Amino acid sequence: MTTTHIGVIGSGENVPEHVLQDAEAIGTLIAQAGAALVCGGRFGVMEAACRGAKAAGGLTIGILPGLSRSEGNPYVDVLIPTGLGYALRNIITVRSSDAIIMLHGEVGTLSEAVFAYQHGKPLVAMRCSGGWAHRLEETAFDHGAHLDSRGLMHIHYADRPAEAVKLALDLIGTVPEPSKI
Amino acid sequence: MTTTHIGVIGSGENVPEHVLQDAEAIGTLIAQAGAALVCGGRFGVMEAACRGAKAAGGLTIGILPGLSRSEGNPYVDVLIPTGLGYALRNIITVRSSDAIIMLHGEVGTLSEAVFAYQHGKPLVAMRCSGGWAHRLEETAFDHGAHLDSRGLMHIHYADRPAEAVKLALDLIGTVPEPSKI
Amino acid sequence: MTTTHIGVIGSGENVPEHVLQDAEAIGTLIAQAGAALVCGGRFGVMEAACRGAKAAGGLTIGILPGLSRSEGNPYVDVLIPTGLGYALRNIITVRSSDAIIMLHGEVGTLSEAVFAYQHGKPLVAMRCSGGWAHRLEETAFDHGAHLDSRGLMHIHYADRPAEAVKLALDLIGTVPEPSKI
Amino acid sequence: MTTTHIGVIGSGENVPEHVLQDAEAIGTLIAQAGAALVCGGRFGVMEAACRGAKAAGGLTIGILPGLSRSEGNPYVDVLIPTGLGYALRNIITVRSSDAIIMLHGEVGTLSEAVFAYQHGKPLVAMRCSGGWAHRLEETAFDHGAHLDSRGLMHIHYADRPAEAVKLALDLIGTVPEPSKI
Repeated sequence: MTTTHIGVIGSGENVPEHVLQDAEAIGTLIAQAGAALVCGGRFGVMEAACRGAKAAGGLTIGILPGLSRSEGNPYVDVLIPTGLGYALRNIITVRSSDAIIMLHGEVGTLSEAVFAYQHGKPLVAMRCSGGWAHRLEETAFDHGAHLDSRGLMHIHYADRPAEAVKLALDLIGTVPEPSKI
Repeated sequence: MTTTHIGVIGSGENVPEHVLQDAEAIGTLIAQAGAALVCGGRFGVMEAACRGAKAAGGLTIGILPGLSRSEGNPYVDVLIPTGLGYALRNIITVRSSDAIIMLHGEVGTLSEAVFAYQHGKPLVAMRCSGGWAHRLEETAFDHGAHLDSRGLMHIHYADRPAEAVKLALDLIGTVPEPSKI
Repeated sequence: MTTTHIGVIGSGENVPEHVLQDAEAIGTLIAQAGAALVCGGRFGVMEAACRGAKAAGGLTIGILPGLSRSEGNPYVDVLIPTGLGYALRNIITVRSSDAIIMLHGEVGTLSEAVFAYQHGKPLVAMRCSGGWAHRLEETAFDHGAHLDSRGLMHIHYADRPAEAVKLALDLIGTVPEPSKI
Repeated sequence: MTTTHIGVIGSGENVPEHVLQDAEAIGTLIAQAGAALVCGGRFGVMEAACRGAKAAGGLTIGILPGLSRSEGNPYVDVLIPTGLGYALRNIITVRSSDAIIMLHGEVGTLSEAVFAYQHGKPLVAMRCSGGWAHRLEETAFDHGAHLDSRGLMHIHYADRPAEAVKLALDLIGTVPEPSKI
C-alpha cells in the first residue's frame, strides 16, 4: 500500500520553543490523518515532529545523512542511513514525501524547499516560525509563491499547525510532474 | 528505537518457484524474530520476502530506484523512492541493513553482495537458490568466504531459510567497521 | 597538479544577451588567469562561459546530469556524465570548484548557490545579471551576505566580469571548512 | 568535442610491479591514440596509468571519492572530488568512460567491472594481472564472458597492453544500451 507521506523539514538545532511545539502538533496531526511522517531523522524540528507523530501512534521515517542508525532521534520507526551527506540526503527526504511542511530553517532547510520546488512536491511554510519558512514569503517571486520566474509550483503559507497539515494533504496530486529532475 | 533491519536481496524477475518459496519463508522468519525487512521494493525475490513478512505482521521497507512509489510491490510498508537508479539504489539498500540474506541473483544482486562486503555487512547466501548466491561459493576466495585477498569479511552460506535467518541475526555486530566506504 | 577550478553557474535557457556576453567574458578571463572552468556542461550561461574560455585556450569541464556526453555543449573539453539528475549533479559541480561565479539563474542556480554556501566555496554573484544572482543581494541575510543566521560564509557581489573573476580568485582559501557537508 | 574516454580500473595499493608497468604502458597507448584516460584519481594502477598518459602528452581525468583534490595522484589533469565515497564514485568513473581496461583489482575494482556490465560499457580485463581481472575469466559465466545469465554484454580478455587498448577502442559503440541503469 502506498500510504501518504508528509515530509516535515526544519532546523536540527537552535530552534525556538514555540516552533518545536508547532512541529510536535504537526506530527500529531499527520499521524491522526493516517499519513506517515518523513523527515531527516535528526533533532530539533525533526525530533519534535516525530515525537508528536509517535504520541498519536503514527509511523515515522527518517532519512539520515550518515552511515549509522545511531544518529537518529529516538522517535523514528524507520531510519535509512544513506551515507550521502547532508546535501544529498536532503534530496532523498524530499523525494520520499508527497507534500512538505516547512518550519523555521537554516540553509539546509532552504535547500529542501528548493528541491521540493524542483520536484513538484507541494510545500507549505509555517509563516510565523522564522528562518527561511518566514523569509521565503518576503523574498521569493510573487509574494513568496514561486522560486523562479517559471512559476513551476505555488508555495503556500500557513499560520497554524492544523491549517498547514490540511493544506499539505489537500495539495497532494495538484502539481504537474516537472520535466527536469 | 533502532530495530534490527535484515536485508533480502535477489532477482526481480525469472526467479524459480522454489526460490520464491524460500524468500517468502525467510520474510516470515524475519518478521517473527521482530526484525524489519529491507529490500529493493520491487518484484520476484523482493516481493515474495515482503509477502512473507506481512503475513507474520512484520514491517517491510523498500528502497526504490525510481522517483515514484507506484513502482513498489504491494507488500511494502515504507517505500523510499531514491531516484538514484538501480546501481546507486543498491548501495542504499545495503546501508539500510544490519545483515543481508541473498537468494539467486543476477548482476544487480552481485553488486549488492559486493557492497555488503565493502560496507562490512554480514552476508548469508542461500546455497541452493542458484544465480550468484550459488556461484559465489564456487568462485570467491577461500571457498567463497572472501571477495578479495584482504579478507575484509567472511561470507556465509545456508541451505534452509531458518538457518539463514538465524545466521544473519547472530552475525550482526561481528564485522569490524571498514576503513574505506 | 591541482590547477585552480573556477565554477560558473547560471541558467541554461532564456538568458538575456548581455548576461551571455558577461558569461563569455568571464570564461575568457578565467582561462587567461590559468584556471580551469567548471560548469554544468549544458547551454545558456554555461555554453557562453565555455566558449569564452576556449577562445583563450583554457580548459573546460562540464558535469552533466544525464548519462550521455552528447548532452554537453561543444565547448567543453572534459564532460562527466554523472547520471545523477539535475539536483544531485549540481552538488558535484560545486564540489569540483574552488570558487564560483553566479550569473542570472533560476531555481537550479539558486540550489548551486546554496550548495556553495553549505560547502564553504567562495561565491561571487553578478549583481546586474538578474535572476537569483540579483535577488540574493536583496533577500539573503545582512544585505545578501549570508544564506542563514549562522553566517557560515560571506557572499560577494560584482558588477563587471573582471571584478568577479579577480574576487573569485582572491577569495579561494579564505573560507573555513564547514563541519557538516 | 566528445573525445573518446578510456577508463582504467585496478587496485590502489599492493599492486605487483609488472602490473604497474602494464598500467603505465596502457596509459601511454591511450594517450597516443588521442583518447583521454579516466580513472579513480588515486594511486597504484591509477597513478601508473596516469603517469604513462602524461608521458605521452595525454589528458587524464580522476573521479575522487572524497571532497578534496589533494587526494589525487600528481598525474591527473582534471580531478573531480565527488564526495560520494568509494562505492558511489566507482559508478561515476564507469559512466565517464566509453570503454574500460581492468588490471588486477580487489573488490572495489570488481564493483567497477559489475557497473561496466550493468551500464553496457565494453570491458577488457588484463588476464595475467591477477586479482579480479584474472579471476573473472575463471568464474564468470561462459568462460568469463558474462556476469549473469542474461548475457547483457561480452567481457573480453587481453594479454598485452597494446592488445587491450586496441580491443577497448574497437569495442566502443558495439554494446546495446541497457534498459535498466
